[in-house]
Amino acid sequence: MSTGVDQGRSPYTGEWVGSPIPHTTTAELDRVAATAAAAAPALAALPLADRAHLLRSVAGALAANRDAIVELADAETGLGTTRLSGELVRTRVQLEMFADAVTDGSFLDVVIDPPDPDALPAPRPDLRRMLIPLGPVAVFAASNFPLAFSVGGGDTASALAAGCPVVVKAHPSHPGLSALCARIVSAALAEAAAPEGTFAIVFGEHAGRDLVTHPAITAVGFTGSLAGGRALFDLAATRPDPIPFYGELGSLNPTVVTPGALAGHGEQIATGFVGSFLLGTGQFCTKPGMLFLPAEHGLAPALTAAIDQAALGPLLNERIRDRYERSAAELTGTAGVREVVAHRPVADGAGYRSGPTLAAVSAADLRANPQLLEERFGPAALVVEYGSADELVDTIALLPGSLTATLHADPESEGALIRRLIGRFATGAGRVIWDGWPTGVAVTWAMHHGGPWPATTAPLHTSVGVTAIRRFLRPVVYQNVPDAFLPAPLQAANPLGVPRRVNGATAP
Amino acid sequence: MSTGVDQGRSPYTGEWVGSPIPHTTTAELDRVAATAAAAAPALAALPLADRAHLLRSVAGALAANRDAIVELADAETGLGTTRLSGELVRTRVQLEMFADAVTDGSFLDVVIDPPDPDALPAPRPDLRRMLIPLGPVAVFAASNFPLAFSVGGGDTASALAAGCPVVVKAHPSHPGLSALCARIVSAALAEAAAPEGTFAIVFGEHAGRDLVTHPAITAVGFTGSLAGGRALFDLAATRPDPIPFYGELGSLNPTVVTPGALAGHGEQIATGFVGSFLLGTGQFCTKPGMLFLPAEHGLAPALTAAIDQAALGPLLNERIRDRYERSAAELTGTAGVREVVAHRPVADGAGYRSGPTLAAVSAADLRANPQLLEERFGPAALVVEYGSADELVDTIALLPGSLTATLHADPESEGALIRRLIGRFATGAGRVIWDGWPTGVAVTWAMHHGGPWPATTAPLHTSVGVTAIRRFLRPVVYQNVPDAFLPAPLQAANPLGVPRRVNGATAP
Repeated sequence: MSTGVDQGRSPYTGEWVGSPIPHTTTAELDRVAATAAAAAPALAALPLADRAHLLRSVAGALAANRDAIVELADAETGLGTTRLSGELVRTRVQLEMFADAVTDGSFLDVVIDPPDPDALPAPRPDLRRMLIPLGPVAVFAASNFPLAFSVGGGDTASALAAGCPVVVKAHPSHPGLSALCARIVSAALAEAAAPEGTFAIVFGEHAGRDLVTHPAITAVGFTGSLAGGRALFDLAATRPDPIPFYGELGSLNPTVVTPGALAGHGEQIATGFVGSFLLGTGQFCTKPGMLFLPAEHGLAPALTAAIDQAALGPLLNERIRDRYERSAAELTGTAGVREVVAHRPVADGAGYRSGPTLAAVSAADLRANPQLLEERFGPAALVVEYGSADELVDTIALLPGSLTATLHADPESEGALIRRLIGRFATGAGRVIWDGWPTGVAVTWAMHHGGPWPATTAPLHTSVGVTAIRRFLRPVVYQNVPDAFLPAPLQAANPLGVPRRVNGATAP
Repeated sequence: MSTGVDQGRSPYTGEWVGSPIPHTTTAELDRVAATAAAAAPALAALPLADRAHLLRSVAGALAANRDAIVELADAETGLGTTRLSGELVRTRVQLEMFADAVTDGSFLDVVIDPPDPDALPAPRPDLRRMLIPLGPVAVFAASNFPLAFSVGGGDTASALAAGCPVVVKAHPSHPGLSALCARIVSAALAEAAAPEGTFAIVFGEHAGRDLVTHPAITAVGFTGSLAGGRALFDLAATRPDPIPFYGELGSLNPTVVTPGALAGHGEQIATGFVGSFLLGTGQFCTKPGMLFLPAEHGLAPALTAAIDQAALGPLLNERIRDRYERSAAELTGTAGVREVVAHRPVADGAGYRSGPTLAAVSAADLRANPQLLEERFGPAALVVEYGSADELVDTIALLPGSLTATLHADPESEGALIRRLIGRFATGAGRVIWDGWPTGVAVTWAMHHGGPWPATTAPLHTSVGVTAIRRFLRPVVYQNVPDAFLPAPLQAANPLGVPRRVNGATAP
């Protein structure tokens, strides 16, 4: 039951874009899920080379439609064509990297233990373990990454690489783009002879909830707000058969500047910080929302100057703009918080623009006001002024889990403090950054984009990088099964040449 | 708040064993959890060789106390000294295997991507990823494995191997043994210079719930019933900060005999099946609870004879005995179910003995009665009689997730059917067994002991084998961090010699 529609609006003007797209009904969703379930065994059974070909086909088709995609993405998100062209390249490169990982085969995590008649407490049978696909995966598209974390984005790429059919829930903020990308992805998969049902898209909040509770769905990938993510996590956890829910929710991304770094290149840090926290109008999950500076830092003029020079695009939609303005007001209205740059709401009616917010607070007042530890989506950040190194470390210890934590320090003179901070960062964040900025997430084998709650709902997993595939795989071990009936990666001859750990040792 | 006590009773006689052990109070539990949290960074920082030494120290101490452990274990569980001696060997071997895995270092899953100025869409920084310990882990001991899945068992071994402090919740059925083993484990850890708080034990159901919701606890390992596991899973999932809950709950462990296997060695299969389902008085999580036989199999006499010859020990405790008898009555009272061997409750008052139950049903009646798809803990099993191969495959498809699925077939004449069944088994079970029996789980690198709901709450993970360590680790990536401030496994010189994947390729 659903009677609503999704329709995009231009963040530049507030005007409607394209035509309304009706929400998916429960009956339609049942059909979509059943088709995905029917596709699962066929997709899982495809040879790895064919599975990699599907990913490359999607990558090529998205790249081939660049102009249409970027134009519609900008109309619905206001992120600008430069950023969106880069995001499309990232989306393509990501799909290609997962295709490489599929043919590499190490993601199968094959472990083989030959029989051992002398094993204790009992003789050991022949055991051959590998990872297999979980089944149909629901992917919730993100407002702030309409390409790289949406229809053909990282969750879809890693689920397909795992061999799982995908059902995308479109984001209501860019429905026209979602429909366009879904048509391109579907056509590319069909052309590459993917099983029917390998990919589908649904629209509407009701369809999203139906998807998370549908018996055919075996896992969920989500990028979005803490409140929305928690609600869907709870649905997944209260199913009769709970399923994994991989949600990336909210992150403060603390950034620490030590006295040594301040003395060495304070002004440069101020400029870098402003560039990072205002990038994409502050709508990155890795936005550095909290800058720890020594008290008496003297950087207010440099920070103000950098903000004055920044060109700020509109926010993604009306709801995000309104929420941002409420959040900025709450921030600057908190006891002990001072404005470094006065927040200037832009109320001229032209789209969803607003002004940046930079506030400051003492570390003591931060500790006294836990509401300051919440993420504020949009161009807002908080400078936290600390006294001693001990106060800095004690305050850092109170922060909730983050995707990233960044350190600017002097390696020559501050070794002991650096070790304390990096140790603390590692327990609270998924990525520890030295002398840089958290915005910009490289898509590589080693990347980890995750972290303890509330950064994510699943601290063991990442939504970026090759290991993101693991979210959608589970192990199976075959005991004494004759070679002819084993999956190819486990057969004695290793016909696919996949890496295998045999008898406890990695084979060359 | 808790005023109860735990005290063991002999399953052979029903008499009390040892002295009552008071339940842990909330205040005591807070202290235990705080101490574990304080130990976490110190334990995580131990060199890998020292961490391995802790595990070996525990292994040696448990083995050195064999006689006292086995005697008390038998008094409280009635599992017999032969089985319990074997279980103690398994517990020791398990700890030693995890020690080997710690020094091997591959469990750290190190991935290193050097900088790449030409990467698309942007130049790539230096990225170095490894796994680090989650933090304090709660371990719920199992009634049916008082050693290998309890105080010093697999969950404890894998959490310590990961570098996580452990707080065990003792099982009320073997509290004296739990206290004895906890003293041995604690002394061995202290002797090996483990940080204080590396290990603790608590008693009482209330303490167990407190543990799952305690802010200091970061993950839970559990082996037990579906109802108990689901209740604790729900507690973990509804925390303000949900944590991973690794529960092994209930499993039917279907076993299929094809016409070819029946013709070839039907009587031998009947004997093997009875030996496996009655092993440990049917109290294994891998008990083959469902045997699929061709209709007109003619094995009733062989099954009956094997059961008549079996020597059956008592059940673990009064509650399990009573639940088993209710469950057996429910089974044989279901429409279409016939008794192969009449269930004979043993009501002479001597301890917790009961008789075995073997019933039979047609595949059609199984499909019509979903309550037959529930695990029945204890010496009960159900023969399912099928007509055609299609009926067999269609019925198998309806089974809930299991830890194991076993096939007896003729590889020469039944290749096509075998492929269909093994494919189906892999999607519904964690271990696929050929021509054997599911009881007996080898502790090796390749072993997987897990499966889809309701076999476990976490289908991606295992509670047996080296990969069980991963449940208690999460990734962190270091970006551009100077070598001197990196953890040893990530440093350029690789001083520990751990296996690493560099730039997408496995280093030799």
